[in-house]
Amino acid sequence: MAGEKGKVCLAYSGGLDTSCILVWLIEQGYEVVAFIGDVGQEEDFEAAREKALKIGACKVFVEDLKEEFVKEQIFPAIQANAIYESVYLLGTSLARPIIARKQIAIAAQEGCQFVSHGCTGKGNDQVRFELAYYALKPDIQVIAPWRLPEFYDRFAGRKDLLAYAAEKGIPVAQTTAKPWSTDENLFHISYEAGILEDPNDMWKLTVDPEEAPNTPERITISFEKGIPVKVVNHNDNTEVTEPVALFTYLNTLARRNGIGRIDIVESRFIGVKSRGCYETPGGTILRTAHKDLEGLTLDGHLRAQRDQNITVPYSRCLYNGLYYSPECEFLAQSIPFTQRNVTGDVKVKLYKGNTIIEGRVAHGDGAKLYDMIESSMDEHGSIVQSDATGFIKTHSIRLKKFTPASQ
Amino acid sequence: MAGEKGKVCLAYSGGLDTSCILVWLIEQGYEVVAFIGDVGQEEDFEAAREKALKIGACKVFVEDLKEEFVKEQIFPAIQANAIYESVYLLGTSLARPIIARKQIAIAAQEGCQFVSHGCTGKGNDQVRFELAYYALKPDIQVIAPWRLPEFYDRFAGRKDLLAYAAEKGIPVAQTTAKPWSTDENLFHISYEAGILEDPNDMWKLTVDPEEAPNTPERITISFEKGIPVKVVNHNDNTEVTEPVALFTYLNTLARRNGIGRIDIVESRFIGVKSRGCYETPGGTILRTAHKDLEGLTLDGHLRAQRDQNITVPYSRCLYNGLYYSPECEFLAQSIPFTQRNVTGDVKVKLYKGNTIIEGRVAHGDGAKLYDMIESSMDEHGSIVQSDATGFIKTHSIRLKKFTPASQ
Amino acid sequence: MAGEKGKVCLAYSGGLDTSCILVWLIEQGYEVVAFIGDVGQEEDFEAAREKALKIGACKVFVEDLKEEFVKEQIFPAIQANAIYESVYLLGTSLARPIIARKQIAIAAQEGCQFVSHGCTGKGNDQVRFELAYYALKPDIQVIAPWRLPEFYDRFAGRKDLLAYAAEKGIPVAQTTAKPWSTDENLFHISYEAGILEDPNDMWKLTVDPEEAPNTPERITISFEKGIPVKVVNHNDNTEVTEPVALFTYLNTLARRNGIGRIDIVESRFIGVKSRGCYETPGGTILRTAHKDLEGLTLDGHLRAQRDQNITVPYSRCLYNGLYYSPECEFLAQSIPFTQRNVTGDVKVKLYKGNTIIEGRVAHGDGAKLYDMIESSMDEHGSIVQSDATGFIKTHSIRLKKFTPASQ
Amino acid sequence: MAGEKGKVCLAYSGGLDTSCILVWLIEQGYEVVAFIGDVGQEEDFEAAREKALKIGACKVFVEDLKEEFVKEQIFPAIQANAIYESVYLLGTSLARPIIARKQIAIAAQEGCQFVSHGCTGKGNDQVRFELAYYALKPDIQVIAPWRLPEFYDRFAGRKDLLAYAAEKGIPVAQTTAKPWSTDENLFHISYEAGILEDPNDMWKLTVDPEEAPNTPERITISFEKGIPVKVVNHNDNTEVTEPVALFTYLNTLARRNGIGRIDIVESRFIGVKSRGCYETPGGTILRTAHKDLEGLTLDGHLRAQRDQNITVPYSRCLYNGLYYSPECEFLAQSIPFTQRNVTGDVKVKLYKGNTIIEGRVAHGDGAKLYDMIESSMDEHGSIVQSDATGFIKTHSIRLKKFTPASQ
Repeated sequence: MAGEKGKVCLAYSGGLDTSCILVWLIEQGYEVVAFIGDVGQEEDFEAAREKALKIGACKVFVEDLKEEFVKEQIFPAIQANAIYESVYLLGTSLARPIIARKQIAIAAQEGCQFVSHGCTGKGNDQVRFELAYYALKPDIQVIAPWRLPEFYDRFAGRKDLLAYAAEKGIPVAQTTAKPWSTDENLFHISYEAGILEDPNDMWKLTVDPEEAPNTPERITISFEKGIPVKVVNHNDNTEVTEPVALFTYLNTLARRNGIGRIDIVESRFIGVKSRGCYETPGGTILRTAHKDLEGLTLDGHLRAQRDQNITVPYSRCLYNGLYYSPECEFLAQSIPFTQRNVTGDVKVKLYKGNTIIEGRVAHGDGAKLYDMIESSMDEHGSIVQSDATGFIKTHSIRLKKFTPASQ
Repeated sequence: MAGEKGKVCLAYSGGLDTSCILVWLIEQGYEVVAFIGDVGQEEDFEAAREKALKIGACKVFVEDLKEEFVKEQIFPAIQANAIYESVYLLGTSLARPIIARKQIAIAAQEGCQFVSHGCTGKGNDQVRFELAYYALKPDIQVIAPWRLPEFYDRFAGRKDLLAYAAEKGIPVAQTTAKPWSTDENLFHISYEAGILEDPNDMWKLTVDPEEAPNTPERITISFEKGIPVKVVNHNDNTEVTEPVALFTYLNTLARRNGIGRIDIVESRFIGVKSRGCYETPGGTILRTAHKDLEGLTLDGHLRAQRDQNITVPYSRCLYNGLYYSPECEFLAQSIPFTQRNVTGDVKVKLYKGNTIIEGRVAHGDGAKLYDMIESSMDEHGSIVQSDATGFIKTHSIRLKKFTPASQ
Repeated sequence: MAGEKGKVCLAYSGGLDTSCILVWLIEQGYEVVAFIGDVGQEEDFEAAREKALKIGACKVFVEDLKEEFVKEQIFPAIQANAIYESVYLLGTSLARPIIARKQIAIAAQEGCQFVSHGCTGKGNDQVRFELAYYALKPDIQVIAPWRLPEFYDRFAGRKDLLAYAAEKGIPVAQTTAKPWSTDENLFHISYEAGILEDPNDMWKLTVDPEEAPNTPERITISFEKGIPVKVVNHNDNTEVTEPVALFTYLNTLARRNGIGRIDIVESRFIGVKSRGCYETPGGTILRTAHKDLEGLTLDGHLRAQRDQNITVPYSRCLYNGLYYSPECEFLAQSIPFTQRNVTGDVKVKLYKGNTIIEGRVAHGDGAKLYDMIESSMDEHGSIVQSDATGFIKTHSIRLKKFTPASQ
Repeated sequence: MAGEKGKVCLAYSGGLDTSCILVWLIEQGYEVVAFIGDVGQEEDFEAAREKALKIGACKVFVEDLKEEFVKEQIFPAIQANAIYESVYLLGTSLARPIIARKQIAIAAQEGCQFVSHGCTGKGNDQVRFELAYYALKPDIQVIAPWRLPEFYDRFAGRKDLLAYAAEKGIPVAQTTAKPWSTDENLFHISYEAGILEDPNDMWKLTVDPEEAPNTPERITISFEKGIPVKVVNHNDNTEVTEPVALFTYLNTLARRNGIGRIDIVESRFIGVKSRGCYETPGGTILRTAHKDLEGLTLDGHLRAQRDQNITVPYSRCLYNGLYYSPECEFLAQSIPFTQRNVTGDVKVKLYKGNTIIEGRVAHGDGAKLYDMIESSMDEHGSIVQSDATGFIKTHSIRLKKFTPASQ
């Protein structure tokens, strides 16, 4: 009987995989509520809605999550300088909690006992989705078809999915498979695959630095307590302040100036290495500018504590899908204190892949830390230089008792 | 009587400051041994030697320290991904221990009770030099003229030094002062000043990215256990392997492609913020390439430990002049283990300020970590996907008992 | 002229040193406001007040700081499990910020340009006091007589102080010097000296465990969010809840049961090692009980983050006198989140130096983490045991690619 | 056919569980090699050998692992001050790698394709054994009966095992089950259970502190580079030096003085909390003495680095069964450097549960760090006290720019 096994809220993309999953779930005896989270990916959401209904979803929810994505995830990550393995800006990791939270909310509202997704059994996203599900609704049950032998044995390759789609009347847009798996949102796009034959084939968001304009663009980004609040383009006087618009505008600038591409090998949570290529245009500019403003406004000892004890483990929590965990919330809640004085403007030049800092100014209490006279090598300022003698001699007390091995 | 107060080994640069100090020390009753450490700065060492003798040094030592600088400091810093406050590659910090060690060796050999330097009383370099001196030779006595009221009160400004030089017959090369203080070595050049009126005025090592060639250069850097051992330029088949030559060649490549400039505000050890501009051409390429190869060859958990618990505190020790300290040697000696498998080649494209990774391959045990089939989203490989269910469910046990605050 | 140099607020103890300093300051031309902070030390405060006035103080403030000491310093340190070098519970470090803050408040109120204290130039307390002074009132000026040659040359030994006291009519209570320096407050007493001939001579607060009662006492300590809120003595049904009374009562219990003595060598901030003996009676019980309740109520991953990234650096900040610093406030403000669920009761047996945990129970959300059935080796509970296979196999993926060195 | 499925090396204890497993494995078609690792547990190994043969093992190996356990695991853990969640000394965790390594060696030598153990599916030991197996021999296959539904469904309770034993002629020694699961070795014994009705029932190794002698025992423990090399008992002049004998002797002393009991709730790797009671007699004395000697001989900054960045994560790796992992070996190999100067003697008083330090002396370079004169508050020594002024004022530079929140 249709729906006899219960009701599933499926994270639906409109693509081949989740369309087949939707139909397969119905075939297995579930009623399916399709949920499409708009986190800024390029997608025809209305077409996806219609497709879901056409192939059997009892209800479809298309939810605009962009604002909460920017405010609750992207900006806090910028505040924390979040980065995984010193290179990856965590674009996919940041979007997953927002999507999972809304999916769980819809599941609760629609009385679904189950949630489902189309992630494979080898990646990080299954972990990110499911740990969020379980933390947010401990009694939820998860159906992960790509980890079920009855599913993955039946759909061993792409052509099995296409055959199933043909059989079940699932409309298929693309006819040739891309050789990589992608994830796109407002913050980034990812390409993952074992081999990427021609890397230049895939980049989608950004122009190649070699093809970017020969004339740089100059902008000023203003931060309040570590949050970007205004971008001004000095080339054309554009000014944006609303969070989503601001971030989207930075994306536009970065894209046309070839900023934000990386090609890496990373360590997945489940213990395998994978190659990933990422475009994070606006985020790359923001992170560079934010770090620079911290140079001016953040006490050095506080920065050292934060860099070692918060940024590294926090980034790892995010990557590993532990956003809704006691340790991640602990780390997250500690960050705003560090940003109290990170208020000011950063002047940035964008040029052919480069984000070049050209100046910065602090406002408020953060402005007290830098004193041109005090730091000058030529001026005496308020520091009595002879104090340094006591400082050095006191530090030398224990060093004089130490026999260097590397002498 | 000349030299009645004892013998001083002075770190001598040939410039106005240390020339005045040399003469002033003699005037105070010291005998002066001048020591010039060649760590790759652009300098006419023979002219400096003659000048020192001419103005009264009893002996002059010009020591080529480039090889030990590259092998003992630069390459280990690359292995550790050393970086201060997420931006500064520590060029000055790395050279100081090498210079101090030789200065102390000469002081010991020449029977000097004192060492002296021309660093100001507000900077990091006084600390770096003196902590190294005291650790290496606990009974050494330090004369830091810029911290002595009898010196800094007498030489309140540059014109007092010039007047003194004129009076004492000290040859003066440059007649107009640069508005910044610089430090140059094989690894980098620094410019520090309260204000930098026209930033484009100072850059010396690198071309402006806007003026770099329109055609990229492609190279391959080979590492053995994290140490660069070969660079091949695919544009012209140049190949270099000897450490100093290799590093110098990377400098050449980076300089002409506009790579390695930064403009930052940093936290000095003594607690003041200062603005610094740095050019670290070859080091910037090497660090990027090394990090990339680690992505392929370094276990993720080991990398996480190293990033948090070694790289951050190690970089801080280096910056703060604690190279010869128990904690810094402890951190340093732990690093080679992490590099056992960091062996392979990294393909890099250099283009107008960008260091772009275009591929990498591992050799030896490090090659085992990445398995294209295993990580592929489309292939099953050796991982039974259903294991991930147990992995996720086990991780969820504690999360189900947690009530997220950010729900 | 009397007071011509300005007004000093002196941290006054009533003892020989600070009495001589008080008179000496007047002699130097300062007007002196004496400030006595009552942090629970055994002292005749009224006698000290009269003595200060008698020897020339223009005003005397005796301030009861016990409640703020307990609530703002002791209890938060218990919440954080603060400990220095794995042994020292930081009794002196915790009291200093409370004393300094009040001293600065009085200095401001009384229009003092200066503050002064009787700490020596080799210890931690000078640092703790002065860093707090400067952070709280950056324009304050500090007079530290024991670091001034004109003072320490004049008072080279105790007999010089006694002679001065006799000359100036300063009443002297004790005639023979104790061979150690002590600091006492509600939390602890310290004894520091190069050599302690007969260690059993000095212990003051606690009985020797060998002389403690043969019958144990059993108590229950209740915590709310990591703060002790009630102590019940099961031997006699005593029950206390008010913070100062509760802590004082724990002191009483610990003292008579011989709990809280340590004898250590520690690393002072200024780089020398010193031997210290400490009695921290009530604090020792509280710390043990609090850690135990955390075992039951604190998520393991959160505890790991806190133990490594907060407790260690936070304790070091406290020890080094950096209480009023950006990094210490940052660490401190992160702690309450960890204590949200640390609510419950701990049963403790006190016996001849031992604090023995005999049981614990959690209240509220913290009670969810432990589930007797779930953890039992004999019962199945809610965990599907076969999930562990997937957990282990997934963890083994990367280990299978690793060649152990210690094989 | 007997053994048709291949050959299994089973970690055998001689108890009911592993005896039933042995027989069950044969029943399933495996040939079974029994392996008994002697890590110091109280056991009749010859009786266990005979029992294994009697019930069907094709071969039995009884291996004395005590010396490698002491030298490769216990002493390095003492050097590192290893401790889990600030209370547990890791007794079981330390023995597992030694047992697993030998089991894998026997499996390789005997041509076993499989290894097996009797650990449950809810505990840490399954993880510790299996991660070691996979790291040491990636192609090994693991049979964990307590995670196999065909096993755990059949043997739902203890009486099913007893019935099976009766049916199969497996001799059963104990007739009544203890309400807890235990693990014993030279270092410790553990008791784990959901509820412990009468805690005093179980303690086996140590006397109750209340019943320990009224007269203390005084000993001196000598360390060389952090390794205990001699114990002298001053009450009777006993002296031991050989590693296993030394550790066994410390156990004897601690047991009779009631030292080493703890009762805790801990966080298992798989995410559940469990209650554990442990007796770690000799290890408790050694850890206390070693930490004390480090106070005297270990530089404070090095100690801080080690405490935060090594001890905490290293202990967690050990607990989680990651001994044979890149990160654990990395942490382990960093430790000997810290112990270079931890050489000297510690005087300890043992009394009714207490390990009381009564003095310490350093030998070699470690003796340089403590200087009685230097640290004395009354003597000037080699430190010019006025240097402290410069030290404090330099530290205050950044603090003066900070506005404390807790003012």
